[in-house]
Amino acid sequence: MPTYAAPTKDMSFVLHELLNVDTSDVPGYDDLSPDFTSAILEEAGKITGEVLAPLNAVGDKEGCTLENGVVRTPTGFKAAFDQFREAGWTGISSEPEFGGQGMPYIMGMAVSEMVSSANQAFGMYGGLTNGAYASILAHGTQAQKETYLPNMVSCEWTGTMNLTEPHCGTDLGLMRTKAEPQGDGSFKLSGQKIFISAGEHDMADNIIHLVLAKIVGGPEGIKGVSLFIVPKFMVNEDGSLGARNGVAVGSIEEKMGIHGNSTCVMNYDGATGYLLGDEHKGMRAMFTMMNHARLGVAMQGLAQAEAAYQNAVIYAKDRLQGRAVTGTEFPDKPADPLIVHPDIRRSLMDQKSFCEGARAFVYWGAMMIDQAHESDDKDADGLISLLTPVLKGFLTDKGYDMTVQAQQVYGGHGYIEEWGMSQFTRDARIAMIYEGANGVQALDLVGRKLAQDGGKHVMAFFDLVKNFIGENKDNEALADFIEPLKNASKDLQAASMYFMQNGMKNPNHALAGSNDFMHMFGHVCMGLMWARMAKAATSALDAGTDDPDFYTNKLITGRYYMARQLPATGMHLARIQSGADTVMGLNAEAF
Amino acid sequence: MPTYAAPTKDMSFVLHELLNVDTSDVPGYDDLSPDFTSAILEEAGKITGEVLAPLNAVGDKEGCTLENGVVRTPTGFKAAFDQFREAGWTGISSEPEFGGQGMPYIMGMAVSEMVSSANQAFGMYGGLTNGAYASILAHGTQAQKETYLPNMVSCEWTGTMNLTEPHCGTDLGLMRTKAEPQGDGSFKLSGQKIFISAGEHDMADNIIHLVLAKIVGGPEGIKGVSLFIVPKFMVNEDGSLGARNGVAVGSIEEKMGIHGNSTCVMNYDGATGYLLGDEHKGMRAMFTMMNHARLGVAMQGLAQAEAAYQNAVIYAKDRLQGRAVTGTEFPDKPADPLIVHPDIRRSLMDQKSFCEGARAFVYWGAMMIDQAHESDDKDADGLISLLTPVLKGFLTDKGYDMTVQAQQVYGGHGYIEEWGMSQFTRDARIAMIYEGANGVQALDLVGRKLAQDGGKHVMAFFDLVKNFIGENKDNEALADFIEPLKNASKDLQAASMYFMQNGMKNPNHALAGSNDFMHMFGHVCMGLMWARMAKAATSALDAGTDDPDFYTNKLITGRYYMARQLPATGMHLARIQSGADTVMGLNAEAF
Repeated sequence: MPTYAAPTKDMSFVLHELLNVDTSDVPGYDDLSPDFTSAILEEAGKITGEVLAPLNAVGDKEGCTLENGVVRTPTGFKAAFDQFREAGWTGISSEPEFGGQGMPYIMGMAVSEMVSSANQAFGMYGGLTNGAYASILAHGTQAQKETYLPNMVSCEWTGTMNLTEPHCGTDLGLMRTKAEPQGDGSFKLSGQKIFISAGEHDMADNIIHLVLAKIVGGPEGIKGVSLFIVPKFMVNEDGSLGARNGVAVGSIEEKMGIHGNSTCVMNYDGATGYLLGDEHKGMRAMFTMMNHARLGVAMQGLAQAEAAYQNAVIYAKDRLQGRAVTGTEFPDKPADPLIVHPDIRRSLMDQKSFCEGARAFVYWGAMMIDQAHESDDKDADGLISLLTPVLKGFLTDKGYDMTVQAQQVYGGHGYIEEWGMSQFTRDARIAMIYEGANGVQALDLVGRKLAQDGGKHVMAFFDLVKNFIGENKDNEALADFIEPLKNASKDLQAASMYFMQNGMKNPNHALAGSNDFMHMFGHVCMGLMWARMAKAATSALDAGTDDPDFYTNKLITGRYYMARQLPATGMHLARIQSGADTVMGLNAEAF
Repeated sequence: MPTYAAPTKDMSFVLHELLNVDTSDVPGYDDLSPDFTSAILEEAGKITGEVLAPLNAVGDKEGCTLENGVVRTPTGFKAAFDQFREAGWTGISSEPEFGGQGMPYIMGMAVSEMVSSANQAFGMYGGLTNGAYASILAHGTQAQKETYLPNMVSCEWTGTMNLTEPHCGTDLGLMRTKAEPQGDGSFKLSGQKIFISAGEHDMADNIIHLVLAKIVGGPEGIKGVSLFIVPKFMVNEDGSLGARNGVAVGSIEEKMGIHGNSTCVMNYDGATGYLLGDEHKGMRAMFTMMNHARLGVAMQGLAQAEAAYQNAVIYAKDRLQGRAVTGTEFPDKPADPLIVHPDIRRSLMDQKSFCEGARAFVYWGAMMIDQAHESDDKDADGLISLLTPVLKGFLTDKGYDMTVQAQQVYGGHGYIEEWGMSQFTRDARIAMIYEGANGVQALDLVGRKLAQDGGKHVMAFFDLVKNFIGENKDNEALADFIEPLKNASKDLQAASMYFMQNGMKNPNHALAGSNDFMHMFGHVCMGLMWARMAKAATSALDAGTDDPDFYTNKLITGRYYMARQLPATGMHLARIQSGADTVMGLNAEAF
């Protein structure tokens, strides 16, 4: 059965040597001393490795079961959830006013990475609750906040997000769920929602559903969509639980993975709901949380890749097969371990360099969100908005690929469920789909974010890269990083230029290249992260660290990424520059 | 539930307009008139689409069950197998001497593609039998052939291949299964084999296991491995079945996919076996069949991609979401279908251009095998040996990617088992692993095949490309094909050159690039196939075909592949030329 050990050293490196959180000017970061963050990471590492990881395979095998309207979670989930929330992990970044620990989002992200690596399906119960918490915090009335948030911070009550209906997901303007005003400020909701993660389960006293619906008589399409709070059990004035509301699980889905999370069809049959935020502004209320939620999914791409990678390494060191081509390395054994073979190394280096780069990228994103949120920094907000689809789309596509590579290291055993490697790929697969399928991320990036505020944010990104290159171009220790980063960034600029010149004439010329653009943008971001990490590693070595191996290995891993992954930008550029003619050339009937 | 309709028109195009089978000089091909092949393809299309495809989801859901030593296949499998063998499909390319229909291997391949697209797990029962049949045909005594082959051709008896043991797969020298000579020409086999596809089931009267084992007292390692025939039931002199042999299924594996095929742990406990071929030459006997078997797996990569693609197209035309960016296309509908969106097109074109190119590549491979086999053509044999790892590794890696893309078209529904798209990816995953994991294919290509016979075969391949380019460089209708093919081929040559210059000094410099080399080689082969198909399409258009759309669409699809896929060779070359230093730079402890 796979194991998980939180990579706390790499996490600390990103927090303190790459992002320098404690000396940064992000409000709330001054408490994040290395001692403090270490304590958090070590403790979170313990509970995730020792309690959540062993339940990962159990959740996959047992799944959730629905009987007489009751959803039972897998053996051990409830006890672990109790332990997890009692230790305060669910409210780590929530407001102290509602019982949270008030730490910056970046610390919540680091803990979430561990939870997700250890047990993604389990982590979603708290993750969804966090999302619903954040929506109520941002858009709720004071009374709503006081009614719901304390119990959601502690996860005594969990939360859900209800968007999708059987016939519409991305295109929510087609939505049919209706909300009838009752004259007393409340509404009666009727309709069916599908793919509702943690929609019903046995681990919490109440479930607070956030539901998108159309108020009867409101505007057509997406402009008539509002957001509602629909509790499973009504909440009395004194905070105690009242009658069961008119919302019930219809069925639970049989899915490819994340079996430990109950994905529900939810039926609303005159359920009482309360408007959250303004009438007909439901999409806006949802979108406020989008950067958070999408960054959280980006993190899942990294998290599954990391967990799968760790287990691939264990197997590659253990399994004996063949001899090293440069000469036997373990003459006393009947064969050398897999890890001596160059193509196994290639695969492990792909995985390792991805995970470490992706972690830097995700934590940097979280830092921008903290900056934007706590200081109303419009530039940080603009940059993270631009990079959010890149983070989500690129890291989940690649994260999935990495789980497939990790599985491949196991050969035939990778295909057998008992070994647990298949679960990583099956669980990772969902992250490419939910929170906006990756094609939608690419569309958002090219069709919307690129030109936002007159293209200001993408220019700011290019400046960031240019400035880094300018400042470090004479640093010989970074030569292996600067040149590839420059080339990749040039490719990305050329692609942007192509879109500007051709997208006006025909938007298909831009959108046909959107997926490639998202991927090349991802590589440039990863290249920037690695170049910065290389600089930090060089500084540590120059300063005379007592752990030179750690920093030397960082440099080797980074050089691998620059040499082996960044050349992908040339391929993506060539595809983009081939335009839309071959993409759109066939009539629909010809498929 | 997914459906499957055999792409008979595309298959005929490859057979008759690309490969010109009936006018070629391959022995046995003169019967392959368009009328004849059409009749075969249409009939096979019917049974696969109507009988086998509907059982695909059943097999996935039910799987196989083991009770008291009996393996039950999924509902409907046995009846379908009866229908399939009674119609003679199992022996289509087998020798008439043993009841087969004696058609060339290429026709068997076309039928197998359909079977595999419709129901890969089902197809494996007959596929494995074919493999065992071919081994006995090549290495058996006349008595062995007469005893086993007629019933194997008709699939009254099925066959298996037993190589892997719990601790060794690729490195069979570590094998522990023992064979003790009994003095009467027979042996007693003892040991455990794992991952035995169709190892035990309820669809045949007998199962003929081909088992690799070490004769006691023989040479150490791989040189002491022999191949044995071990029937489940002993066969009496008169051909009737006798006592149960000492071989039994220990358990069946829970796998990621191909649930409809029983993957067994087989225990040999003093089982009676008969030497097949020479003592200690078991690997050679196995390897004779390797090109066939690996080409068959390459075909599975294509087959799953094709089936998934067909269903992605259906969904993309049906599901309404958003509006075309260039203007509403279906104003009478609440939204336009997915297929209007450029990134959905990009995905469908990736899939379509892959499937059609891959089919050409696989059938060309089958033609070379026929040529080599029927005319003892050493050049054809050398070329197909070189290309076999490319076919197997590239087409199964890419075929899997295409199933993932097809699943992605379905958004959230792609993740729900009910829709069936997850099954295509889970089933396709195994093809990257079995018959030699793809890393082993890359190693075989770069470490062995490239330099085989003094590099003669790779030179022959480059000549083939060069000659085609030379002959067609002035054909303006092919301009979009010739230039990209030339560039990609140059990249491939540069990579070969890099290996030659650096692999001598340090073989890691070659092997660290083996996976990239396999992929760039695959792209060049696909580029060659598309350029040739484009030429055929142009000829048909010039000649005044009555179906100009078919050929025009072929050209558009081919142009897509050349413009959007061939640029990958530049990326692979850059990776290869970065050498082994970053790949092998870390100590094993640093992972």
